[in-house]
Amino acid sequence: MSDPTKTSRRAFLRGSAAALAGGATAASAGTPDPLITEVQDWASSLGDGVDATPYGLPIEFEGDVVRRNVPWLTADTISSINFTPIHALDGTITPQGCAFERHHSGAIELRKEDYRLMINGLVDRPLVFTYADLERFPRENHVYFCECAANTGMEWAGAQLNGVQFTHGMIHNMEYSGVSLRTLLEEAGLETAGDLADKWVFVEGADASSNGRSIPMEKALDDVLVAFKANGEALRKEHGYPVRLVVPGWEGNMWVKWIRRIEVMDGPVESREETSKYTDVLANGVARKWTWVMDAKSVITSPSPQSPIKHGHGPLVITGLAWSGHGKITRVDVSKDGGITWETARLGTQGDTKALTRFYLDTDWNGEEWLLQARAMDETGYVQPTKDQLREMRGENSIYHNNCIQTWYVKADGEAENVEVS
Amino acid sequence: MSDPTKTSRRAFLRGSAAALAGGATAASAGTPDPLITEVQDWASSLGDGVDATPYGLPIEFEGDVVRRNVPWLTADTISSINFTPIHALDGTITPQGCAFERHHSGAIELRKEDYRLMINGLVDRPLVFTYADLERFPRENHVYFCECAANTGMEWAGAQLNGVQFTHGMIHNMEYSGVSLRTLLEEAGLETAGDLADKWVFVEGADASSNGRSIPMEKALDDVLVAFKANGEALRKEHGYPVRLVVPGWEGNMWVKWIRRIEVMDGPVESREETSKYTDVLANGVARKWTWVMDAKSVITSPSPQSPIKHGHGPLVITGLAWSGHGKITRVDVSKDGGITWETARLGTQGDTKALTRFYLDTDWNGEEWLLQARAMDETGYVQPTKDQLREMRGENSIYHNNCIQTWYVKADGEAENVEVS
Repeated sequence: MSDPTKTSRRAFLRGSAAALAGGATAASAGTPDPLITEVQDWASSLGDGVDATPYGLPIEFEGDVVRRNVPWLTADTISSINFTPIHALDGTITPQGCAFERHHSGAIELRKEDYRLMINGLVDRPLVFTYADLERFPRENHVYFCECAANTGMEWAGAQLNGVQFTHGMIHNMEYSGVSLRTLLEEAGLETAGDLADKWVFVEGADASSNGRSIPMEKALDDVLVAFKANGEALRKEHGYPVRLVVPGWEGNMWVKWIRRIEVMDGPVESREETSKYTDVLANGVARKWTWVMDAKSVITSPSPQSPIKHGHGPLVITGLAWSGHGKITRVDVSKDGGITWETARLGTQGDTKALTRFYLDTDWNGEEWLLQARAMDETGYVQPTKDQLREMRGENSIYHNNCIQTWYVKADGEAENVEVS
Repeated sequence: MSDPTKTSRRAFLRGSAAALAGGATAASAGTPDPLITEVQDWASSLGDGVDATPYGLPIEFEGDVVRRNVPWLTADTISSINFTPIHALDGTITPQGCAFERHHSGAIELRKEDYRLMINGLVDRPLVFTYADLERFPRENHVYFCECAANTGMEWAGAQLNGVQFTHGMIHNMEYSGVSLRTLLEEAGLETAGDLADKWVFVEGADASSNGRSIPMEKALDDVLVAFKANGEALRKEHGYPVRLVVPGWEGNMWVKWIRRIEVMDGPVESREETSKYTDVLANGVARKWTWVMDAKSVITSPSPQSPIKHGHGPLVITGLAWSGHGKITRVDVSKDGGITWETARLGTQGDTKALTRFYLDTDWNGEEWLLQARAMDETGYVQPTKDQLREMRGENSIYHNNCIQTWYVKADGEAENVEVS
C-alpha cells in the first residue's frame, strides 16, 4: 500500500492550490456565503433522537444508491439479477443492503429452526446439521469478493449504453463468518472416499432451483466456507439466510445460497448449471467448462457514465476496483489515452486475497477528452487483457468470464460514455 | 492469525464427534426428520424477485438485532446513546444500520449541497470547502473502531443487570473512506502557525450542540480522517452525513459528526465536552483530563447474558471482541474461573491497528459453572486490567474509560449473568 502522505501527494497539492480556488473558497474573498455567515436551522434546533432508527437505512438524499436490475435481461425478475451501485461507493466493503443478488427461483424465506444441512455420499458418517450445530464448530472470518460469471457479459456484444453499475455491478465484497467446509467434511469422515484427488462434492440449495454445482475436492478442502454472517450480521434473505456457501475467487453461481446438501461423489454431476449454463462457447462452437476462477479484473468506477466529472477543471480523483480470483492484486495501471500510455495507481487497501482492492489515481483534468482504462495485475503475474485479446482467445459467443479492460470516453463537458477501442 | 486447520482444531473435532450426535444427526438413525424427508414449501414454489429490495433490510426473523437505548440513562433520547447488538454479531465489521449512535442535540439532516467545512485560525489561507471540494483530494480507507468514552461506564458502580449490548455496545467498527486532515491543513498552510509542537485544532459540528473538542496538532497531522463514507457507502444521517471526523483510537466524542469547522489554535479551548464532561474524576476529587486514547479492552460476546448456551453439553465456541486505541491487539486470553487460569484464544482476524479484533476459544462445556473473562494485550505490551486494579488507580467516581476485565457467570443451565469477582 502506497503512503499518500509521501512526495507524490505534496506535489499534487502544490499544483492544485490555485485550481481549487474556484472550489474551496478563501474565506476572506468574494460574496459572503449564507451557509457560513448565517445560523442555519440545523444548528438551532434539535435533530432526531437515538430511538428514531433501531435499524437504520440510508438518508433520503442517497435514495438512488440502490441495486438495479435490467428488466429485459431475463424473462422474470424472479430468475434475474440486480447490480451493486459501485459508481457511488468507495472503499472496499459492500453493505448487504445494496449488494448484488442473483436468484434462479427467487429469494426464499427459511427460518433457522427449519434449516438443515446434509452431508452424504462417500463419507464415513452421513450427517445432518441444524443451524445450532453449525455454530458449535470453529469459525473463520474473511473478506471475499463474489462476482457473477456473467458480470460484464453484455459487453461481449460491444459497448452498451450503460454505466459501471450495469457493466460491472454483479459483484460484492463482504466479510463472511462461518465454518470451513473442510471442518464439516472431516466431521463426516473422508476415509470412505479413498483417494481424494479425483473426488468431488455436489452442492445444492434449498430453493426450488436447487442450483446444484460440482466442486472438486481440492477446492472443497481448501478455502470454502459454510457461512452464516456477512459484514458481521446475519445473511440477508436475498443472500441466503440463514446459511450460504462461500467459494472464494470462484464464480458466484457456485456460492450456493440456502445450502441444504453436500454430497461427496466420485465425479462431477454435470448439472444444468455447469453444462447448458456457466460454460463458455468458443468461436468454433466448442464449450469450455469448469471455468470456475474469476480472472484478474478492474474497472474505473469514477469518473464513469453514472459518475461524471461535475466540478470544474483541476484536481480530480480517479478511482475504481480491482480483484482476482487467483489471489492478491499487486498493481493497477490507469490509461487516459485508450491504452497507449499508463500510470500506476495507488492501492487504497492492503489487497486481501480474493477480495476487492480500491485504487486511486490523484490527477488533474482540464477538459481534455480521455479514453480512460484500468488494467489489473495479480500476484501470479497475470495481466488483465484487452477486449481484442480476450475475443481472440474466446470469440464472441460467450456470456461469461469477460474480464477485459473497460474504456470510458470522458468528454470535454465531464460526461463519460461506454465505448470500445481497438 | 492462527491457522484453525492445524492440530488444535482436529483434536477438538475428534473429541466432539460423540457429543455432537445429539445435535448433528446421523442421517441413518432415529425418527425421520420431515425437514429432510419431505419436500418443503420453499423448495417447491418461487421466492422473491430481485426487484423486491432495491435497498435491503435484515430478514424479519432477525428483528431483535437492533440498536437499543436505555431510557433512564439520560433525560431525553435526543441527547442519549444507543448500543450495538454485539451479542448477536460475528466477524469484525459493524453494519451502519445497527452501529451505535450518540448525539448531543440529535441527528440533523444536512444536504451535501448545504455542507461547508471551514478551516481557519492560525493558517496561511483560511478556506471553506464544499462537499465536492473534499472529493477532489486524495482519499484513504481504513477500518477503525469508534468507542464512546462512556462505554462500560455503568459498570463502575458494580455489575449491572445488563447484557453485553449494554455493557460494551457503545462501539462500532467500520471501513471509513475520506481525506486525511493533514492534507486539508496543509492545503490551508501551517507556516503561520509556527512551531507545531504546541498547536491544537478545535473541531466542531454543524448540529446545535456543536460538540467542540480540542485535538493536539500531533494527532491532527497523524491519522485523523475527514470521512464521507463508512463501509463503502455514504455515512448514515445518524453517523454524521455527509461528513464526520474520524479520530482513530481516541474516544468517540472527538469523532465530530457533521463537522463544520476546524480552527488551528495555540492552545486547547477547554470546552464543556473536555472539562465538565469527558474527564475522569479520581477518588480524591481531582479530574484527569485529555484522556483521549481508548486503552486495550476485550469482552466475550457469546456466551453472555443475551446469548446464553442453548444447545446441550459438548463443543462450544466462546467468542468476543478486543481492541486497543494504541494499535494492534496481539493476544487475547480467556479464563473460565474468574481469572485464576487462562487459555490463549485464537484471533479470527489479522488485527488491524485501532480496529476490532474477533477472537474465538473452541472448547467444550458440560454444564460446569464458569466465571468467564477475556483479557486483551496490545502491541505496546499493555495488559487489560481487572476491575480491582482499575478502581485502585481511578477510584469509583468515574464515568469514562472503564476498560476493565468483564465477568460473565455461566450457570449450569447455560444462562449467563453479569457479575463481579475480586
